[in-house]
Amino acid sequence: MSAFTNGDIFVGETLGTAALILLGGGVCAAVTLKKSKAQNAGWVAITFGWGFAVMIAAYMVAPKSGAHLNPAVTLALAVKSGDWSHVPLYLGSQLLGAMIGAVLVWLTYLGQFQANEEPTLGIFSTGPEIRNPIQNLLTEIIATMVLCMAILTQGLTVNGSLSGIGVLITAFTVVGIGLSLGGPTGYAINPVRDLGPRIVHSLLPIPNKGGSDWSYAWVPVVGPVIGGLLSGLLYKGLF
Amino acid sequence: MSAFTNGDIFVGETLGTAALILLGGGVCAAVTLKKSKAQNAGWVAITFGWGFAVMIAAYMVAPKSGAHLNPAVTLALAVKSGDWSHVPLYLGSQLLGAMIGAVLVWLTYLGQFQANEEPTLGIFSTGPEIRNPIQNLLTEIIATMVLCMAILTQGLTVNGSLSGIGVLITAFTVVGIGLSLGGPTGYAINPVRDLGPRIVHSLLPIPNKGGSDWSYAWVPVVGPVIGGLLSGLLYKGLF
Amino acid sequence: MSAFTNGDIFVGETLGTAALILLGGGVCAAVTLKKSKAQNAGWVAITFGWGFAVMIAAYMVAPKSGAHLNPAVTLALAVKSGDWSHVPLYLGSQLLGAMIGAVLVWLTYLGQFQANEEPTLGIFSTGPEIRNPIQNLLTEIIATMVLCMAILTQGLTVNGSLSGIGVLITAFTVVGIGLSLGGPTGYAINPVRDLGPRIVHSLLPIPNKGGSDWSYAWVPVVGPVIGGLLSGLLYKGLF
Amino acid sequence: MSAFTNGDIFVGETLGTAALILLGGGVCAAVTLKKSKAQNAGWVAITFGWGFAVMIAAYMVAPKSGAHLNPAVTLALAVKSGDWSHVPLYLGSQLLGAMIGAVLVWLTYLGQFQANEEPTLGIFSTGPEIRNPIQNLLTEIIATMVLCMAILTQGLTVNGSLSGIGVLITAFTVVGIGLSLGGPTGYAINPVRDLGPRIVHSLLPIPNKGGSDWSYAWVPVVGPVIGGLLSGLLYKGLF
Repeated sequence: MSAFTNGDIFVGETLGTAALILLGGGVCAAVTLKKSKAQNAGWVAITFGWGFAVMIAAYMVAPKSGAHLNPAVTLALAVKSGDWSHVPLYLGSQLLGAMIGAVLVWLTYLGQFQANEEPTLGIFSTGPEIRNPIQNLLTEIIATMVLCMAILTQGLTVNGSLSGIGVLITAFTVVGIGLSLGGPTGYAINPVRDLGPRIVHSLLPIPNKGGSDWSYAWVPVVGPVIGGLLSGLLYKGLF
Repeated sequence: MSAFTNGDIFVGETLGTAALILLGGGVCAAVTLKKSKAQNAGWVAITFGWGFAVMIAAYMVAPKSGAHLNPAVTLALAVKSGDWSHVPLYLGSQLLGAMIGAVLVWLTYLGQFQANEEPTLGIFSTGPEIRNPIQNLLTEIIATMVLCMAILTQGLTVNGSLSGIGVLITAFTVVGIGLSLGGPTGYAINPVRDLGPRIVHSLLPIPNKGGSDWSYAWVPVVGPVIGGLLSGLLYKGLF
Repeated sequence: MSAFTNGDIFVGETLGTAALILLGGGVCAAVTLKKSKAQNAGWVAITFGWGFAVMIAAYMVAPKSGAHLNPAVTLALAVKSGDWSHVPLYLGSQLLGAMIGAVLVWLTYLGQFQANEEPTLGIFSTGPEIRNPIQNLLTEIIATMVLCMAILTQGLTVNGSLSGIGVLITAFTVVGIGLSLGGPTGYAINPVRDLGPRIVHSLLPIPNKGGSDWSYAWVPVVGPVIGGLLSGLLYKGLF
Repeated sequence: MSAFTNGDIFVGETLGTAALILLGGGVCAAVTLKKSKAQNAGWVAITFGWGFAVMIAAYMVAPKSGAHLNPAVTLALAVKSGDWSHVPLYLGSQLLGAMIGAVLVWLTYLGQFQANEEPTLGIFSTGPEIRNPIQNLLTEIIATMVLCMAILTQGLTVNGSLSGIGVLITAFTVVGIGLSLGGPTGYAINPVRDLGPRIVHSLLPIPNKGGSDWSYAWVPVVGPVIGGLLSGLLYKGLF
């Protein structure tokens, strides 16, 4: 990771994660909110929307910071490389970017949010269909390991050498994880993707917005962290 | 931009934007009109249709003119490069191409249009779900900035060096913007994509075609123009 | 075209067009027939099914024959190159392949066809939503010109130099044409894609199969032929 | 195939096939089970889910074992190359991986499975819409031959030289086969994809899980085996 300057890492991860959450949260808003042209566009729209969110964000900032955009990816790469020196900067920038992205979703759909009459947490953060913390944690660990193993074996994000074809494969990898493993918990697979927008949800002045479900908030943070660390170890053991 | 001759710019941008609007307006016609095999195919069909419209049009004319096909892209690239000499030619060719494309949509769906019984403006131009010019403008600025930042950072359209993989990524970028940010206003993100077909809509002899909503027409022109200029400035500041 | 031997052209175009129609007709069968897991999967399934049919077939035989798989493409390339010597061999092989492909669709869905109770021509050949031969012809000409202009400008099929990324772009081009321009007539855009399966439909012992609508059969042959020839001329004029 | 060590083949094929079935079985669970966010997402979701499952799994382990992940592919390549020495190791590893993958699906959707009230075999293995072993066998042979001919002619899996673009084309090939040829039997096109999860289904403690339909189990094993062998012979005859 040391190929990037601290300034570039900060700009790249903040801008990239903001773009990721603007587009990822955006598709959830598009499909959920009333008076949106995409209302009820369905699960295929959501999963492809998140996949292309990763593609757009990653390709935009890869030369700056390697485009981790996800603490689970940063941790998996740190375990692989043994270099933990920039991890705090990556994680902080990612959380800041995720919060900025969530505010941008709110601005993009401002009219829809002002007319809102139903709970909106699902636009910002994930929640389980069947609430069972251990099972939900297990689902998030497995889904995150698929993501991180794919990224580690593809070698896409080391020193920013993200190729065009690599970013397409990563995008479709995220679509695939959503389609296949997103059913139980909504596939956070990224701690800041869930925590950043949840903080913003708790602060924004949205009418009838409902609660921010803080009792569940640790699962989509801890699960992906464990998944990222385990992926790094599994990679080192097998490859 | 100076790598292209004036004649090539004119042919490339006119032909390319005509193809873009033929295919982009075409998918709106396909999904909207009665007696179309694609009626009610939904938002996924519309967003992928527009994305592949960009792909087909851009790849067709990239060697001629760099395949801007969008004044917002032209302006963003002019801010980046500092070269404004060909901007008027690009913009004029794009508007002409967009009008030709809209006429081609009408010819392709001529039987359907002749049997038309409902307002058809939505096939030609965008409109807001909740009418609030400032909010609608903001939505268009944000969505256009995502497009232009993606194009600027990917360096896809400078001097026509559009690679195959680059055009695929641009296509899916447009799909992603549609899925995620298209809900409030229908994502014009391109002044001529909206204005050209709106002019043609006002002129074509379509029965029961309804009004052309000129009071809204400035929003999808001004928003993308602002978004393109801001993207150029943001790019110069960050990269 | 002379880079291929007559034997290779025959094998390549026959095998490739058979694969194209097996997969393209297959998706129509999958979405239409009762007791199919894909019944009512919709227009997005059909358009992506045809696009991937082109991808699979073209990539399979490109080194043998350049993977035209479509008389409109062969004619467009002949106008461009001025070399008409192998055109009859291409066209004959394509028609044979299309007929073989239609038989393979029937074998793949044999149980479904044996239990059939409704007209099945739509699985084999195209038909207009609003029957007006001149308008239907115009739609097919426009849609075919988009296909052929895309192929000519991309230079994908000359001497078999079909790259991996090129075949992906061609596949999505076909998806895009289907989404945007397929509404009125079902986008034959390929004379043998319509004629070959129509002949097979008239011969196969399918219960309740309905008529083969020979009065319309000339439109999806003549339209794509005109579109292919006009594309060759337009390309020579502009590029 | 001899470019890989026995240990790498075992690790690669076991890990890769486990990932394939986790993601492929996962999308079937996602779309089928109650209390899943993807319930009723439809055939497009299933076919893209399986396609991206192949993409993720193949790209992950291609450098280890060539990423066959399917006995039909292994047999087709053995016929092509004449080298049968590693075939038993490939097949055994693939079956083990498929069983592990099916257990992972169960763990990912554990809460949903614990609340299950309906037959679940369709999440694990394929079944025909119209039960007729000879016809079902024919469908599986044809679909498998399309897959294997695509892989043989693309030369994607020899010695692990799987390129990024190659794996994308293979993924969309699998999507295309599903869309076009999956209607009658659910396109096993891979003996272990069906047999491994069927064994696991018969062993797992899922309430109301229903029978494992062992009378049909030979069809999705024998059909793909025949299809793989015939593809190798056809390839040697034509190319």
